[in-house]
Amino acid sequence: MELLNSTLSRISPVSVELLQQAQGRLDNKTKPLGSLGKLEQFAARMAAISKTADPELGSKVIFVFAGDHGITEEGISAFPKEVTAQMVYNFLSGGAGVNVLARHAGAEVRVVDVGVDHDFQGCAGLIHKKVAGGTANFAKGPAMGMEEMLAAIRVGIELADECRAKGISMVGTGEMGIGNTTPSSAIIAAFSGLSVRELTHRGTGINDAALEKKIRVIEKGLAINKPDQRNPLDVLAKVGGFEIAAIAGLVLGCAANSIPVVIDGFISTAGALVASELHPHVREYIFAAHQSVETGHKFMLERIGVQPILDLDLRLGEGTGAALAMTLIEAGVKIMREMATFEQAGVSQG
Amino acid sequence: MELLNSTLSRISPVSVELLQQAQGRLDNKTKPLGSLGKLEQFAARMAAISKTADPELGSKVIFVFAGDHGITEEGISAFPKEVTAQMVYNFLSGGAGVNVLARHAGAEVRVVDVGVDHDFQGCAGLIHKKVAGGTANFAKGPAMGMEEMLAAIRVGIELADECRAKGISMVGTGEMGIGNTTPSSAIIAAFSGLSVRELTHRGTGINDAALEKKIRVIEKGLAINKPDQRNPLDVLAKVGGFEIAAIAGLVLGCAANSIPVVIDGFISTAGALVASELHPHVREYIFAAHQSVETGHKFMLERIGVQPILDLDLRLGEGTGAALAMTLIEAGVKIMREMATFEQAGVSQG
Repeated sequence: MELLNSTLSRISPVSVELLQQAQGRLDNKTKPLGSLGKLEQFAARMAAISKTADPELGSKVIFVFAGDHGITEEGISAFPKEVTAQMVYNFLSGGAGVNVLARHAGAEVRVVDVGVDHDFQGCAGLIHKKVAGGTANFAKGPAMGMEEMLAAIRVGIELADECRAKGISMVGTGEMGIGNTTPSSAIIAAFSGLSVRELTHRGTGINDAALEKKIRVIEKGLAINKPDQRNPLDVLAKVGGFEIAAIAGLVLGCAANSIPVVIDGFISTAGALVASELHPHVREYIFAAHQSVETGHKFMLERIGVQPILDLDLRLGEGTGAALAMTLIEAGVKIMREMATFEQAGVSQG
Repeated sequence: MELLNSTLSRISPVSVELLQQAQGRLDNKTKPLGSLGKLEQFAARMAAISKTADPELGSKVIFVFAGDHGITEEGISAFPKEVTAQMVYNFLSGGAGVNVLARHAGAEVRVVDVGVDHDFQGCAGLIHKKVAGGTANFAKGPAMGMEEMLAAIRVGIELADECRAKGISMVGTGEMGIGNTTPSSAIIAAFSGLSVRELTHRGTGINDAALEKKIRVIEKGLAINKPDQRNPLDVLAKVGGFEIAAIAGLVLGCAANSIPVVIDGFISTAGALVASELHPHVREYIFAAHQSVETGHKFMLERIGVQPILDLDLRLGEGTGAALAMTLIEAGVKIMREMATFEQAGVSQG
């Protein structure tokens, strides 16, 4: 709780002056005012977050947090639970979607075991931060104890602090956890009060019957646990997951350390939503990579107050969308840094 | 007309078998079926266009065609006409938006004078293909003579043929021509029969009064020229532009040479629309980079039958959106080529 509180106390609004200064710089470039749309917004936000009118593009890291979910025993996922650990090995050998797209974007993938039901002892390349071997089934009681949940948040915060020390210029979030669209739907349901049906989708691809079951399981979990929507930590502990808690910590840590954080899809946004509910200025550090196919996602983004950059019908997670969005954000920064001004190029203004 | 006709005769539908073969390959990758959404479609289309189940990523080129417009004498643009030539020099010295974004995407920018009202003699780096020093004012008569217009189409086709000879794996379109949203609106109005008001926007940033004037000028141009909507070449010659004709030729040439072509925004899409009206299978070779802010753009894309990849409120043109979209299309191909299969990774299937 101490690290969480000190982290929250370090989060401040980004500088409006730097936003304006960056926009002023963009307005002198050889293009009609505002004609590069969101790329210009990305550049200005990067300047304001990085606390410099001339943000540099350095190393990028995507953290993939892995955790298992007790709720899978209810039969709410299309894939068996063992896939979480199997995919961790796939990430480590570079063969998963996020590996391919991170390489394409020039970002490093770092894989973190924060709650997988598998013994990874001696496994090289993995960041070993296991808090427990998965959550409890939240249809029967709280998914995590308060201390366990805080430990997972701490994992995320500490990784963000390390990124600051290493001078990482952009962080992405990703995750792996069979069953984890279920807690994600539960989280947005708890905060928004909207119907579970409206917020619940097919995850990795369940059929109609399984979708009905998933909705009933989430409704049951909310009824049994009664998460307090005014207390984000209560919501997270009762119906969340270890990887979601770690993402919440990472997002908070990035905001506290003035590092732009690119959040991926539905599950990552669930973590970012908890972070955003804990502090009103967290959203200013967040870039939302894309609009997921998961129906609850748009409600999360609206509640945080961010707009998705891409809309490519993605629903894989892992950080795949974050990798794609990073290159667009960098494109905006390069526009600000590299384009000629009207004066430099000898071009008449309109 | 001969080159145009022989090019049209070389265009055939892409292979449905290769589309399916590529999708089958994607379905074996370690991800839920279809979970990478449009990235998977990009990969399958790239395979089908390139006539191989294993398309390689090679060199990318963005052609920026420049031309002037007689219609500017009606006062329909926020920038003076001289800016067309000034921007050509800016492209050649690498300081424009398209240069920055093409570098970011690893694409080469090639600048083509096809109709600029400026003497570029001896100017290094420029591709000299001037047909005339700008179009005539289409509010008073045809923008181009039929032979002039065909010469500009030929420029585009020949550049596509060269790309084939050089083994270029992806081509992007771009343009520069002060005033060229006006002919673009006229072209979609001529084909669609929709009201000019619905299809006309602010270009580089004109005010309300200038927008009203622009609408009246286009209405007058259509009334005077009476372009025949069943004859795409008649529409292009009467209310088009040299850079638009060259883009139409480039798109046709890419389709004939089995090269994927990424079209940029409103003006590029006007050229692609003419190409698409000339041959029903051209659309299968087109990737639409983004949804422009220009209101007429979505009607063009719908008429061609393609969906925009990005929606970033761009309205600069030049090929900037094409550069951004290229990296996403390449991401799709890398997913197909580089991701591990379930078998390779030892991951259980759902």
